[in-house]
Amino acid sequence: MIVTELIEKKRYGEEMTEEEIRFLINGLVNKEVEDCQMSAWMMAVCINGMTDRETADLTLAMMHSGDTVDLSDLPGVKVDKHSTGGVGDTTTLVVGPLVAACGGTVAKMSGRGLAHSGGTLDKLESVPGVCVEQPLERFKQIVRSNGIAVIGQSADLDPADKKMYALRDVTATVKSIPLIASSIMSKKLASGADAIVLDVKTGNGAFMNTLDESKRLAEQMVRIGESLGRRTVAVITDMNRPLGMAIGNGLEMKEAIDVLKGKVPESDPLVEVCLELGSQMLMISGLAENKQQARAMLHEALVSGRGFEKLRTMLIEMGGDARFVDHPELLIGASRIIPVYPEKAGYIGEIDAKDLGLAACLLGAGRLKKGDPVDPAVGILMNKRYGDRVGENDPYAYLYVNNEDKLDEAMELISKAVVITDSEPEQLPLIYDIIE
Amino acid sequence: MIVTELIEKKRYGEEMTEEEIRFLINGLVNKEVEDCQMSAWMMAVCINGMTDRETADLTLAMMHSGDTVDLSDLPGVKVDKHSTGGVGDTTTLVVGPLVAACGGTVAKMSGRGLAHSGGTLDKLESVPGVCVEQPLERFKQIVRSNGIAVIGQSADLDPADKKMYALRDVTATVKSIPLIASSIMSKKLASGADAIVLDVKTGNGAFMNTLDESKRLAEQMVRIGESLGRRTVAVITDMNRPLGMAIGNGLEMKEAIDVLKGKVPESDPLVEVCLELGSQMLMISGLAENKQQARAMLHEALVSGRGFEKLRTMLIEMGGDARFVDHPELLIGASRIIPVYPEKAGYIGEIDAKDLGLAACLLGAGRLKKGDPVDPAVGILMNKRYGDRVGENDPYAYLYVNNEDKLDEAMELISKAVVITDSEPEQLPLIYDIIE
Repeated sequence: MIVTELIEKKRYGEEMTEEEIRFLINGLVNKEVEDCQMSAWMMAVCINGMTDRETADLTLAMMHSGDTVDLSDLPGVKVDKHSTGGVGDTTTLVVGPLVAACGGTVAKMSGRGLAHSGGTLDKLESVPGVCVEQPLERFKQIVRSNGIAVIGQSADLDPADKKMYALRDVTATVKSIPLIASSIMSKKLASGADAIVLDVKTGNGAFMNTLDESKRLAEQMVRIGESLGRRTVAVITDMNRPLGMAIGNGLEMKEAIDVLKGKVPESDPLVEVCLELGSQMLMISGLAENKQQARAMLHEALVSGRGFEKLRTMLIEMGGDARFVDHPELLIGASRIIPVYPEKAGYIGEIDAKDLGLAACLLGAGRLKKGDPVDPAVGILMNKRYGDRVGENDPYAYLYVNNEDKLDEAMELISKAVVITDSEPEQLPLIYDIIE
Repeated sequence: MIVTELIEKKRYGEEMTEEEIRFLINGLVNKEVEDCQMSAWMMAVCINGMTDRETADLTLAMMHSGDTVDLSDLPGVKVDKHSTGGVGDTTTLVVGPLVAACGGTVAKMSGRGLAHSGGTLDKLESVPGVCVEQPLERFKQIVRSNGIAVIGQSADLDPADKKMYALRDVTATVKSIPLIASSIMSKKLASGADAIVLDVKTGNGAFMNTLDESKRLAEQMVRIGESLGRRTVAVITDMNRPLGMAIGNGLEMKEAIDVLKGKVPESDPLVEVCLELGSQMLMISGLAENKQQARAMLHEALVSGRGFEKLRTMLIEMGGDARFVDHPELLIGASRIIPVYPEKAGYIGEIDAKDLGLAACLLGAGRLKKGDPVDPAVGILMNKRYGDRVGENDPYAYLYVNNEDKLDEAMELISKAVVITDSEPEQLPLIYDIIE
């Protein structure tokens, strides 16, 4: 097969065969397909799209481009949960332990944050001592004894996705339903999940900004999962505001611990989304028959503290210092805490979640480019939510700061991102749809 | 400016500003824009197109990406001629000397052959001793005394085009009217031409296969030239068959010499196209008032041998060995000459000119990839033309062969490319249109 002829097919919007797609993806990994060729092909995919069949074939080709993890020797249905990326989105650290406490098997491989969106590995590492790179056998051992472990992907898992993602990031080809769907699903499949719950974010802080796009992405991923024999459900949730109050790794770990210790009411949006995702995970694992039963199980795991124990055990088994888990205020020892005041009294009428994420990034909580170091102690702690009334002297957020180099820039971004209105804004839905 | 945002604009089919285009092109040359980024952008251009204004701005940005040649100290209108690339297309070596013999100033920078299409530099080098890399002052000196010189482009001429062309070649983005038009016109403008005659090929051996596409390309280039103050005319000529009888560098040089020595009738397609192109060159140079006058001047230059003298002097001034010019049969000393017979008697009913070009390439006359060596002595000499009657024992072509490694492959390609029909095929036009 000739690479240029394959690129040309997609340039003219033709459907490619399974062999052609596999040839391209294997060629990328074997360096027979050049980066410039893959970039041109991906741009053609962005503009001309792919059929469902092509997207499923692309997913499989990417999944088999490297090692695949075999979890079949672990008991029960191995259930995974994936978020398409958001701001203040600490769900994995809450829902994973809760599901494990209800008897679920959560053997999860996770990623790092990039740009405005956070990543679970960075949050885990906010606890001193935690090592997210565990040998596979050790990982399985923790899952076997504790029901949950979350580690980083091995370098050889889905190498095609790593290369494609790095190229997409610089060639304006990130936003593409077939490319996003195959990227997410190929990693989930390669890491051995039997059943997958997808948290597809929608809104200004998500990669998909409109509900329509998010639905199409969710449907595409569910179709891929089902066509490859994995039970797959997608929950479409709001990302027109940070989900939790904390944006930053230590702050978010502390928030997750607070939730699991029962310090946050169940009506809280973060908890509500976790209970919805957890219910879906229990149902597709066959551990609950319906949502009512699932909710009751999760509630019990929350109030009994058994969920917290699962998180605590996992962190300690992965090398974490228990003192920080038991006293999470130690996680956020920034040198300065700066309140942010509204320019006038009113309501929090609009929040650009993406810009808040970027502001946290500027403070050192995230990375602007791959490989940048992150500071676990810094970030933004919201003091008011979307729709809340705020007085002139009420700080709506606190900045946790160690390095002030980009503080002004961050501050400016935040005051642009949070819009104060005179009248109370309309309430936004938290959960838009469930696609199965 | 952020590169991904510029790529994104073209991805969504928006019009880019002059500054944005300049930023991309300069960035490519300065290595601030990566190859994968330019490839993705060019694919978006291929699919979504460019406006006339964008294409003119792209041409200017490419022209100014490196050195530009100043020919203003040479006398008269500096007239250039460019062919979009074909098979057996030896026009430059014929028409350039004829125009010079009529008082024209032809200071031409030319390129090498790639894939099925030949290049003038390779043809010049078929004469032992010829050096196509001449210092600018020496080049001008030959033009001043002889009216014509043809050399290679300096490495610093239009470096953006060199990079873009190398990328387009491997990313299936060669065929794109704005990219072809800007590539050709930026080089012509950078090499200092005042007036440009374009020979836009159409048909199975051209980069543009349909007359409609070729017309659109011609119109685009004429608009660019005129908008930048250069007198520009395009002649659309047939490339559904090789133009001359020779395909291969020494063979084509010999054919050009034969034409200029008056050994080929003026009704021959190669001569006819040369006379048309030459007329246009004389008219836009202001040396002839109308086509009739131009034709008479060119006829005189041909029959008097003054055209041949211009070619001869140029080749010798560039280091060429006069014996090979005076005895051009020395140029084609292949070790074996193999006749090719038709599978049955009939008419030459169809010729795939591109496949003939590729077959010559396989024999060593051209290069499959940039930098490959070429053998000046080998190639294909047609013995019959499109439409000719051919008997079972009449060879329709002769292969000039030194290396037989790919002979079988070449032979197979040729018998597929030349279709013998029972009835006489329709005559094809030679010149389709003149766009000015």
